[in-house]
Amino acid sequence: MNIFLDRTHGEPLYLQIRNQIRQLILCGSLPPGYRLPSERGLAGLLGVNRSTVTGAYQELEADGLVESRVGRGTTVKPQAGGKEGGDPAGRPLVWKHLFSRQCNRVTSPLISDIFEWLNADGVISFAAGVPSADRQPAREFACLYGELLSRRRNILEHSPTAGYWPLREYIADHMAQRGVRTGPENVVIVAGSQQGLDLIARVLLEPGDVVVVEEPSYLGAIGVFRAAGVRLLGVPVDEEGMRVDLLERLLERYRPKLIYTLPTFQNPSGVTMSRERRLALMQTAYRHQVPVLEDDAYSELYYDGIRPPLLKSLDPGDQVIYLSTFSKILFPGLRVGWVVAPAEVTRQLVLAKQLVDLHTNTPAQVALAEFCRRKLLAGHLTGVRKEYAQRRDAMLGALIESAPPGLAWNRPQGGYYVWCSLPPVVTATRLLAATSERKVVFLPGDAFFAGSGGSGFIRLSFSACDEETIRKGVAVIGEVLGELCRRSANEEKEKRGGADLMPLT
Amino acid sequence: MNIFLDRTHGEPLYLQIRNQIRQLILCGSLPPGYRLPSERGLAGLLGVNRSTVTGAYQELEADGLVESRVGRGTTVKPQAGGKEGGDPAGRPLVWKHLFSRQCNRVTSPLISDIFEWLNADGVISFAAGVPSADRQPAREFACLYGELLSRRRNILEHSPTAGYWPLREYIADHMAQRGVRTGPENVVIVAGSQQGLDLIARVLLEPGDVVVVEEPSYLGAIGVFRAAGVRLLGVPVDEEGMRVDLLERLLERYRPKLIYTLPTFQNPSGVTMSRERRLALMQTAYRHQVPVLEDDAYSELYYDGIRPPLLKSLDPGDQVIYLSTFSKILFPGLRVGWVVAPAEVTRQLVLAKQLVDLHTNTPAQVALAEFCRRKLLAGHLTGVRKEYAQRRDAMLGALIESAPPGLAWNRPQGGYYVWCSLPPVVTATRLLAATSERKVVFLPGDAFFAGSGGSGFIRLSFSACDEETIRKGVAVIGEVLGELCRRSANEEKEKRGGADLMPLT
Repeated sequence: MNIFLDRTHGEPLYLQIRNQIRQLILCGSLPPGYRLPSERGLAGLLGVNRSTVTGAYQELEADGLVESRVGRGTTVKPQAGGKEGGDPAGRPLVWKHLFSRQCNRVTSPLISDIFEWLNADGVISFAAGVPSADRQPAREFACLYGELLSRRRNILEHSPTAGYWPLREYIADHMAQRGVRTGPENVVIVAGSQQGLDLIARVLLEPGDVVVVEEPSYLGAIGVFRAAGVRLLGVPVDEEGMRVDLLERLLERYRPKLIYTLPTFQNPSGVTMSRERRLALMQTAYRHQVPVLEDDAYSELYYDGIRPPLLKSLDPGDQVIYLSTFSKILFPGLRVGWVVAPAEVTRQLVLAKQLVDLHTNTPAQVALAEFCRRKLLAGHLTGVRKEYAQRRDAMLGALIESAPPGLAWNRPQGGYYVWCSLPPVVTATRLLAATSERKVVFLPGDAFFAGSGGSGFIRLSFSACDEETIRKGVAVIGEVLGELCRRSANEEKEKRGGADLMPLT
Repeated sequence: MNIFLDRTHGEPLYLQIRNQIRQLILCGSLPPGYRLPSERGLAGLLGVNRSTVTGAYQELEADGLVESRVGRGTTVKPQAGGKEGGDPAGRPLVWKHLFSRQCNRVTSPLISDIFEWLNADGVISFAAGVPSADRQPAREFACLYGELLSRRRNILEHSPTAGYWPLREYIADHMAQRGVRTGPENVVIVAGSQQGLDLIARVLLEPGDVVVVEEPSYLGAIGVFRAAGVRLLGVPVDEEGMRVDLLERLLERYRPKLIYTLPTFQNPSGVTMSRERRLALMQTAYRHQVPVLEDDAYSELYYDGIRPPLLKSLDPGDQVIYLSTFSKILFPGLRVGWVVAPAEVTRQLVLAKQLVDLHTNTPAQVALAEFCRRKLLAGHLTGVRKEYAQRRDAMLGALIESAPPGLAWNRPQGGYYVWCSLPPVVTATRLLAATSERKVVFLPGDAFFAGSGGSGFIRLSFSACDEETIRKGVAVIGEVLGELCRRSANEEKEKRGGADLMPLT
């Protein structure tokens, strides 16, 4: 009976002994009736304590593989064949009893619903944050894709977990141009920034940890953090971005594991964090040794000539994990994004990613790398900046024209979103219910708040509709909202009037 | 001061009150010095207990937003601006203190290493389980991809989280032909079966749960289960597949959450579970109400004319979650696989997937659906079955020719793998170290065991190499192994000889 113990292996020795004897029995190498060595004898042979062997033998006995009798020692039992018969369709399984705790934390299908709505006919949608399908370089990209497919042998095969090297190189160069000192080895390609969020959560967060998010914040990130079972602390956003002055006290009191921010053209508020706030945020994060996750999907889409500095470029201490994506500047269907992080973090992200999907779709990475290498991205961005700026202006103009009193909004300097606060008498979901009857949709603010408090806001995305459609849709929202406000005022009046006229009997 | 309480919202009322007052203060609606309503007064207005308001005010005070003084009530404090100054590069962050427990459970980069090795020059690799690059319909697929890209407007845009509908339809049809009663709504497209494993683990498993796996089993699944923090119970595989007769006792004793099996042309052992065992497995699983996860990546690659029934087709109780992929039959770089499961389970999988990556790469799904619709897959499969059968036979022939005594192997009826058990004097890693010096690599058995016990096995993948290369590589393994066996025998002899000749002094 040969048993090999591996003391460098994490498995306890008694289990190694048990498993190997089990295998010998099951292969038939140790036939029924075979007498195992005495516990003391085997312990001596293997150089382990007797109690280790005792533990192994007890497990084997519990498994029904051996029996111990006083005076006869431990012998191998005869093995029965598989039992057959029985009703294959007995009581049906109750799946909900089997679901993990995460299933209780992930109950809203909102994101997947948004994708289902995308193709609804005749609906004016300000809901999804997607690029303009008719302004995309689809033809150029298709040509290039086809060319690569026919020319490159490995384009449909596996590629490295961390990402296709030329794409990582391009991204490292691009980040360097934006003031971030990094190399391709610090870049991990992910299946869209959504996967980046999820991988970062896996690597850093435990249920019960605390994470600081802006209020409002990106709904997909709130979803990931909720699924991870963490506690979210909201810090309000004003016209200069996250209220960093409130952060100090939260960091002291709750010791969060992560600060999550979308500093530039924020989703959903459109707000950009000022340079002063960025510096203050980094100083606060350094002081309290809390990592910062910078989610930067939109900073290339600036419309007033101002592209604010990346937080990551203000981070000599390398405490920022940077996240971005091609989904807002090129094609969201490709699902390609990237993380830039310190080497220790990228190493963990790659370890996690190999189990999550092995690696990101190869042809998409190769095509994007080639598209960028040929400098086609820069030209495309120049074009869409101009186009989206006009759409933003169309939306702001339409709001000025058709907004009823009490509706307020900001003027984003980039990105996709205008964030509106509603008059207090109308909630976002009530407004959406009414406008969707007239085939105009948007996202209610609720989805962007970790707690309550979003029902007074709506997010209007201007990227995907042409100017004419934007004007039509906003006009509908304005009319419907005005109508709801008047109705609410009348109801209020009637209620008061009714009270005045209460019968005296 | 308007406060709206939403009693249908999960957030406690005191937090709703606190958050809304906080927002009013931070927006400047409640200026410094503003006196909040008395606790009793606000409680009356909102129709809540006084203690609820007290809780909210205490939180606001802890946040530094208000102050309470006897006789003056609760007033809004002046808000300070963000503190600046301080050293941005103080103590560097120690990331390893921040990593989650999962990082301790995911430490082997083996899978990502395999992809890095794929392109190593001059190496004969039996390591990766990948299709033959030179037998792939790359040209046809490229043409079709290019055609679709230029013709279909939405091919680069978002697609539904559950998958591209025509692909789900095709898969449902295909499953029906294999005896599985299902519809497209029971199919979820995933980013390769690796993502399927991960999503299923998320939806069903908690740390501490027990999962039954075959011994040996697929290393990527072992990795996912380990990352999830579950306890793995190994059930040995013999020439008829999982030893179902041993399962009964394990299910009674440990009440596992899931039985994970690769019943057909198993990875790594190449073994196929017999029909009797399949029936017995389902009966046992029904009796104990334990779900079964059938991982079926290889069943289309049968070489002796026998395609065994899917477990899922023997499952009238709908207790099997079925998982498959295009990676082994077409292109692994596309990362497209699928899950077939009861509606309750697919619903949870889609909820989880929306947070993990929104959806799978759109063009890959559209191209695969079209490739299948044009019946190109069936023709391709007929071709590769023939080719891979020859490669299998070449490997088996080469083993017979060059294997030293003590090396044993099986004859797989399909799939990619020949599983060899080594003579007891040589471990798999020792053999690999020696063959890789001669540029021949494979995977050691250790990777496929949840515990110890794999070091006596190696997995040889025959799919990716032509027959000539297979013969060369196997000959090298045979020579090196023979050499190691002889060396070990000599060492043993010397040791014994040395003992005989021990000096008498």
